[in-house]
Amino acid sequence: MNSIFANRISDVPRSFIREILKVALDHSVISFAGGLPNRELFPVEEIKKATNKVFEIYGSDIFQYSNSEGYSGLREMIAGRYFEKRKLKIPIENILITNGSQQGLDLLGKILVNKGEGVIIEEPGYLGAIQAFSIFKPTFYPVAVTGEGMSIKRLKSVMSSTKPKLMYTVPNFQNPSGISYSEKNRYEIADILENTSTLLIEDDPYGDLQYSGTCKPSFKTILPKNTVLLGSFSKTIIPGFRLGWIVAPDNIMEKLIIAKQASDLHTSHFTQCIIYQYLKDNDLEAHISKIREVYGIQLKAMLDSIKRYFPEEVSFTHPQGGMFLWVTLPENTSSRELLDLAIRDKVIFVPGEPFYVHWHQTNTLRLNFSCVDEETIQVGIQKLGNAIKQLLI
Amino acid sequence: MNSIFANRISDVPRSFIREILKVALDHSVISFAGGLPNRELFPVEEIKKATNKVFEIYGSDIFQYSNSEGYSGLREMIAGRYFEKRKLKIPIENILITNGSQQGLDLLGKILVNKGEGVIIEEPGYLGAIQAFSIFKPTFYPVAVTGEGMSIKRLKSVMSSTKPKLMYTVPNFQNPSGISYSEKNRYEIADILENTSTLLIEDDPYGDLQYSGTCKPSFKTILPKNTVLLGSFSKTIIPGFRLGWIVAPDNIMEKLIIAKQASDLHTSHFTQCIIYQYLKDNDLEAHISKIREVYGIQLKAMLDSIKRYFPEEVSFTHPQGGMFLWVTLPENTSSRELLDLAIRDKVIFVPGEPFYVHWHQTNTLRLNFSCVDEETIQVGIQKLGNAIKQLLI
Repeated sequence: MNSIFANRISDVPRSFIREILKVALDHSVISFAGGLPNRELFPVEEIKKATNKVFEIYGSDIFQYSNSEGYSGLREMIAGRYFEKRKLKIPIENILITNGSQQGLDLLGKILVNKGEGVIIEEPGYLGAIQAFSIFKPTFYPVAVTGEGMSIKRLKSVMSSTKPKLMYTVPNFQNPSGISYSEKNRYEIADILENTSTLLIEDDPYGDLQYSGTCKPSFKTILPKNTVLLGSFSKTIIPGFRLGWIVAPDNIMEKLIIAKQASDLHTSHFTQCIIYQYLKDNDLEAHISKIREVYGIQLKAMLDSIKRYFPEEVSFTHPQGGMFLWVTLPENTSSRELLDLAIRDKVIFVPGEPFYVHWHQTNTLRLNFSCVDEETIQVGIQKLGNAIKQLLI
Repeated sequence: MNSIFANRISDVPRSFIREILKVALDHSVISFAGGLPNRELFPVEEIKKATNKVFEIYGSDIFQYSNSEGYSGLREMIAGRYFEKRKLKIPIENILITNGSQQGLDLLGKILVNKGEGVIIEEPGYLGAIQAFSIFKPTFYPVAVTGEGMSIKRLKSVMSSTKPKLMYTVPNFQNPSGISYSEKNRYEIADILENTSTLLIEDDPYGDLQYSGTCKPSFKTILPKNTVLLGSFSKTIIPGFRLGWIVAPDNIMEKLIIAKQASDLHTSHFTQCIIYQYLKDNDLEAHISKIREVYGIQLKAMLDSIKRYFPEEVSFTHPQGGMFLWVTLPENTSSRELLDLAIRDKVIFVPGEPFYVHWHQTNTLRLNFSCVDEETIQVGIQKLGNAIKQLLI
């Protein structure tokens, strides 16, 4: 019966993470498996106030069909913040509101990727991007991401052997590894892509969640012609509204609007207006500072606990921001086997395999620190350390 | 520079209707061009109450990431209503919440249509469906829709020469023509499709908006194995939330969920809960009765005015529901030319051409009656009648 489906759907991996999340429903389990922002930091009261104000101000207009580009007030706010924080001048005509950055990936895949065309992807990389692009049947070219960023050697080799349509990057506090591309790495990448037709997608959901180190330049600044920038309110305000955006050059934007219209006409005008009102009446920077403080403390607790409880032969990344860190077990061990041991001890994480284009057993794993408090982190990491020791016996 | 795009995007028609809507921004223009529900009938106060209740009941949970299938409470309500109104038993596992029915079309195109495969489409037909499927580069097989429904002769001929993957239908009060498929026509279509692998999409956004005549059986009842049913709250409650759903068999649903996850993870949980609460606390049937009463009066005013003011050689459909009716001018006239004349007199409509797969000048046009009150309809139709007389001189 499978033959009735389009070829494109057969290659899309179902999210492994969601399957693990089902185990996480048991409240006695300590979960480092999630990929969620911490709900205790959601500005519930402020959103409630903004919502009531929206009802007062807009009346029934708020419920009518709206334009595919998105609410102009919200797009102005986004443009304003890019200028204020990043000195990036972006006309609102170059901003399209999407249902989270995930839809940005879907729309870019739709308008750009013909079957078999090249898409460069980080390895390990964001599972949702692999899923979104898989629909359009590209040829994936994985490029290793390590402490400094993308492997320049591998990137040069890919770029010299083929002309990829897209290159997908999460240069700040990447999911799953937590690493950021160094400034040097960014300029090297820009040099390689300049004067090519490869479009670089800079997906930046975590950029605001920086706890140490300095802010690195955006590809939008150093490779403006080839860069499409994706942003999101999911990690800084709330994820449930599904509100993100794409910043793209004119010619790309024109096609994106057509694709958005064909996909779902437009993103909910109501939730766009609520976020606009929230941004108007509240200090987003103060709110983000609060998130940074909490996540920063939790990251430190996780790093300290890992140093204390994990065997020395285990290595791990030292993120300066974001929500994840990445652990590498000794060679020839399996993080899937570790998960089996850990589940018995009621602690879970995501093994590394779904973050590779071609899933395979690995000795790597992802730990999330945004949703677990300091004390639970210490208990959970100690348990996980014990499980690793059992695995290594 | 166009060569950078995927082939799939070059064939997607930009919505002609949206371009016309720009002229409609002039408040002195009488517009029969829109495709919008009447905002004066939106249950603003009730939605406001439901929203405040949602804040009280759910707290921060409402803002977290959620599941791709959609809120189970809402899916239960949808299933309950199908049983109550249509005697259809649908397990909630076979219901997926989408960003309006438009996204249902996108997801079905994604999982089912390989390049070049056949898609049967009504002619005239819903522009949004043509746009959504165009992305996946099918071969369109237009089948004429007239007073009784689809042309059985043409459908048989298409089905005997090819094996279309999909057949798209709006059997109740179709957009743009307003006509409904007769019971006989439905059974004839079911006979032709039974034991084939062609999947029938029954898009039913207007089914509840019936002002006269009797309710016809759903394809989900008479051709259950081959039918995917699309529903929407856009025409009965509010369109701006972008909430619709797909009812599909198990094997299709499994792929749809993967495609939904890859497209945007999930539809806003917040707006799903608001509509759930609205449905729980209010009498939807009473609300729909109110819409039916108003739209029914406006449809009657339009039909009466057409009879009074249009020349006899003009023919038109007699819808029993929905939001549109369809006018056919004498042969060898152009509705685009009529539009030029009508705009001078400050009345607008949508010429027929965008409702055909291959746009061409036609002698047909669509009139919307949901957004214009009785008196304005009389004035507008008189003006349009005068413009037609001018055209026919």
